[in-house]
Amino acid sequence: MKANVRERLQRMHRLMQEHHMQYYLVTTADYHNSEYVGEYFKFREYMSGFTGSNGDLLIGEESGLWTDGRYFIQAEQELEGSGISLFRMGEEKVPELTEYLKEHLREGSRLGFDGRCISIQMGKKLEKIAEENGAGLVYDVDFSGDVWEDRPVLSAGPILLLEEEICGMTVAEKLEHVRKELKKEDCEALLLNKLDDIMWLFNIRGSDVPCNPVAMSYAVVTQKEAWLFLQKQSSQTEAVKGWESKQPLTILDYHDLSAFLEEYEFSGKVWMDERQMNYFLYKLVEEKAEVYLKDAPTELMKARKNEEELRQIREVYKKDSLAVCRFMRWVKENAGRIPMTECSAAEYMDDLRRKTEGFLELSFPTISGYRENAAMMHYKATEQHQKEIVAEGMLLVDSGGQYMGGTTDVTRTFALGSVTQEMKNHFTAVAVGMLRLMDARFLQGCTGKNLDILARGPLWDMGIDYKCGTGHGIGYILNVHEGPQRIIWKYAPGAKEAVLEEGMILSNEPGVYVEGSHGIRTENIMAVKKDVKTGDGQFLSFECLTFVPLDLDLVEVSMLENKDRERLNRYHRQVYEQISPMMEEEERAWLRQVTRPV
Amino acid sequence: MKANVRERLQRMHRLMQEHHMQYYLVTTADYHNSEYVGEYFKFREYMSGFTGSNGDLLIGEESGLWTDGRYFIQAEQELEGSGISLFRMGEEKVPELTEYLKEHLREGSRLGFDGRCISIQMGKKLEKIAEENGAGLVYDVDFSGDVWEDRPVLSAGPILLLEEEICGMTVAEKLEHVRKELKKEDCEALLLNKLDDIMWLFNIRGSDVPCNPVAMSYAVVTQKEAWLFLQKQSSQTEAVKGWESKQPLTILDYHDLSAFLEEYEFSGKVWMDERQMNYFLYKLVEEKAEVYLKDAPTELMKARKNEEELRQIREVYKKDSLAVCRFMRWVKENAGRIPMTECSAAEYMDDLRRKTEGFLELSFPTISGYRENAAMMHYKATEQHQKEIVAEGMLLVDSGGQYMGGTTDVTRTFALGSVTQEMKNHFTAVAVGMLRLMDARFLQGCTGKNLDILARGPLWDMGIDYKCGTGHGIGYILNVHEGPQRIIWKYAPGAKEAVLEEGMILSNEPGVYVEGSHGIRTENIMAVKKDVKTGDGQFLSFECLTFVPLDLDLVEVSMLENKDRERLNRYHRQVYEQISPMMEEEERAWLRQVTRPV
Repeated sequence: MKANVRERLQRMHRLMQEHHMQYYLVTTADYHNSEYVGEYFKFREYMSGFTGSNGDLLIGEESGLWTDGRYFIQAEQELEGSGISLFRMGEEKVPELTEYLKEHLREGSRLGFDGRCISIQMGKKLEKIAEENGAGLVYDVDFSGDVWEDRPVLSAGPILLLEEEICGMTVAEKLEHVRKELKKEDCEALLLNKLDDIMWLFNIRGSDVPCNPVAMSYAVVTQKEAWLFLQKQSSQTEAVKGWESKQPLTILDYHDLSAFLEEYEFSGKVWMDERQMNYFLYKLVEEKAEVYLKDAPTELMKARKNEEELRQIREVYKKDSLAVCRFMRWVKENAGRIPMTECSAAEYMDDLRRKTEGFLELSFPTISGYRENAAMMHYKATEQHQKEIVAEGMLLVDSGGQYMGGTTDVTRTFALGSVTQEMKNHFTAVAVGMLRLMDARFLQGCTGKNLDILARGPLWDMGIDYKCGTGHGIGYILNVHEGPQRIIWKYAPGAKEAVLEEGMILSNEPGVYVEGSHGIRTENIMAVKKDVKTGDGQFLSFECLTFVPLDLDLVEVSMLENKDRERLNRYHRQVYEQISPMMEEEERAWLRQVTRPV
Repeated sequence: MKANVRERLQRMHRLMQEHHMQYYLVTTADYHNSEYVGEYFKFREYMSGFTGSNGDLLIGEESGLWTDGRYFIQAEQELEGSGISLFRMGEEKVPELTEYLKEHLREGSRLGFDGRCISIQMGKKLEKIAEENGAGLVYDVDFSGDVWEDRPVLSAGPILLLEEEICGMTVAEKLEHVRKELKKEDCEALLLNKLDDIMWLFNIRGSDVPCNPVAMSYAVVTQKEAWLFLQKQSSQTEAVKGWESKQPLTILDYHDLSAFLEEYEFSGKVWMDERQMNYFLYKLVEEKAEVYLKDAPTELMKARKNEEELRQIREVYKKDSLAVCRFMRWVKENAGRIPMTECSAAEYMDDLRRKTEGFLELSFPTISGYRENAAMMHYKATEQHQKEIVAEGMLLVDSGGQYMGGTTDVTRTFALGSVTQEMKNHFTAVAVGMLRLMDARFLQGCTGKNLDILARGPLWDMGIDYKCGTGHGIGYILNVHEGPQRIIWKYAPGAKEAVLEEGMILSNEPGVYVEGSHGIRTENIMAVKKDVKTGDGQFLSFECLTFVPLDLDLVEVSMLENKDRERLNRYHRQVYEQISPMMEEEERAWLRQVTRPV
């Protein structure tokens, strides 16, 4: 692999020389700023050998890879011998990619990249650096085609047409909302590239990114028309054609967007989302029309789940919780009695989901971390590298599914045998934090920053922190990570701090990660709902969607305040009430036992 | 009064006509953006009859007064019959002053104001509005001299020269810090107008604003020199002259600053704080030098109290707490037994402070609110309008002093006889919130927004909110309100969200305000201190400075969680330990009783 990487870099250097480029930047992105990208877009992985989901590769005389704390150890191993330096993002004295370029980009030289794989925001930053350094920017080159042999084809899977009933709103109704916003902001057109926003807007789903039911697509919406750009292989079916004829939209070819934009005669402003839209299309439109940069209106509309979506989600979460309850019983009863590994346990969990009505696919690859492996927040066991599971210590399983009716995500940590007092103390603090946040009542106007300490506080009291947010948004039969809402105590500079609103779905997942020893995470999903309205304002609170017991074998009851104990018992009562009717007699007895009041 | 106001407005209208002005704006400000201003600057009060501490008066064909929620009732009463409309800031559909101007300022017309009484930030906003509306801006007029008969003179009280020992740093050391910042930001000079920053920098205090020990002043600091601009009446004393001769600075006349700036030949950037510096001086300097806008470096230096300041503060707070303990005993034992009013109770409290060693003056006029009067957050009893105090209900006293060694601020609410269960529940929730916040441990990097819910949460759980922040910064022998740190759940748009740092002093004052019934506030002052440093980072927590019992007659013990009960008992133990050694035998017995464990 390392030899390959060196040879690939050499070929790249030759191309760069021909084009008089000092640097070529390879980001980890598709044309849609997706968090996870299809195989076609894994050029950074091909060029560097680094397989993590986040990282930017800057190729030059010296090449460097920038990635975040989740991947430091992995990147170090995978980059070894490649000649590529690792830049640990966020560490002291490690320059950001932009700072590095500011320092090193020479006057008269050129920086190249595929402008389709970079956001407007990032593109503008690079533009500024190049300008200040007296260098040139080449944003319309894509060397991947020349360097990457055997590049996978661009995925073009089938389109799933959702029944209107489970969407709660017709495409026409959603378009009407968008058009109101267009009018309000005095824009002629909205140009969308964010795949989940497009799926939501047109009540369709795709299958071009594993675990993310999205189709490669763009959309343009004006007051009178709506164009949906899909790959021909996906859209040229009887079903899609029949659907198109009944919808207020026109389907065009995914690859024809640039031509469309070049030809279209804009007479007003074109709305783009600076964080999402790619720089190439921005430059293309900017030449011929006024660009209006603002968060896409679809983001918030999609985030605020409507009544029908919530109704579907509640049912799906119950079925999904049942699967996790069954897994809990199986793993606790069988660890040490039958051969079991991290992978086989994950497989058992996945099988339970697959058998669940309405299941489409996993919402992300199941994380199954035993003992110290669970201390790695994004650990992925493989058949080659994994632990055997015995009747001792803890197993952390973070998993979820895509269903016709919702996207789930749930983490539980189970005791499989003897555990230390420290583990119990940690588990209890995590449980208390999770329960307190779930039980919060707060005034309209709060963001996740106001609430984070409810979950994190019990750990801070112990001098412990987890190096990630407490909660992320979740899509509806869509991406398991969705914005703009988050629960986090400290936003990255420039990051958006969204107000929590009725209908938003959030995870609640505090954890403890002790390197080399153990990892604990407990994750429930909740929906923001209206609470009392008093003279002091409209209060909000959370509706719990996940109903899986917290392993009482790990709860140190003496650490619980009275109200925390009440919260735990109330939650377990709800778990029993919601899940037991779906169970068989013998399972029910088990569930009653593991949800007993403490 | 109303007749006077109408007549004054008429005179103003005539002046405006002569100067071809459609509007004249009168802000509540001195030339230093002070929160509280001297009598000389109360032109807005003179012109409108409204006596509140915050409000902008826009004089035009229609005149309007903009003020905040604290003053809606008072402003309505005081403006009645004046012809001035009240604009309730923050209420729905009420335009902000700038929005109103945007709507009403006519093309070709002019907007006038005294640019010395407006911040750069505000001045730029008005500039933009005038430009967009095609109107003119006149910022160098001051009609107050023409309209205001019997205007009080500009206060020019004596200068207090602080002993270096109690400042912890010499003027030379402080200037060195400023000069490092100048160098870092590549600036030639720092121009300061914020009075408490100037007092802090030069280790002096003044007496030109009641309760705020500041002197009217400006300062200019360069790498080589430091000029302090003071009024001659204040600075022409033997003591000040002797001091000046030993300090690395030159004193010039307060009224000569403009001439100084006009003459000085700047060769580099001049640093000003956009939120604090007045627009007039900005325009003056902007014409001849490059202006660098950034928060003044003195703000953070002043906010982070040094070890010596903290040592002084601790001692002062103990003495101040003793005075409040004595008041507590007196008021609870004598209510209903001797004639007592809100004012006489406040007077008794103030007298106890006056007798305290090191006392200089009150840090703000004592708030003494009995029964429903306490529901008004900034209630001020007067001899004419006040309640008689009897042995029933609750009394809220919010008070503080300026001492040679610190500035105090403390609020307690006392039961003077029978109280309702609701009052006890409210008091207990407030106490729990205050104690939880005081007991917080948090990672370096937190702001007040992260912590606010600890104090506010117990009230939100009851559907109650208080319409103000939980905590403000406090000066050192300086203003009782000081930035940049705050504890608040929602910042006003554009407001600064400061990270909490070691040595910062903050109030912690949740409350319940039930209109027409009762008001409760419990306020302790705390200093941010370093806590444990673990693998997960540097933690911070609070050191408590205030030691006055919470009235156990108002605590509903059954509402307390175990940890809250421990917190209360621990706090009361500390109160006894800190205060009893300063007490006489009989007082000590009383203190032991009111700090008994529950």
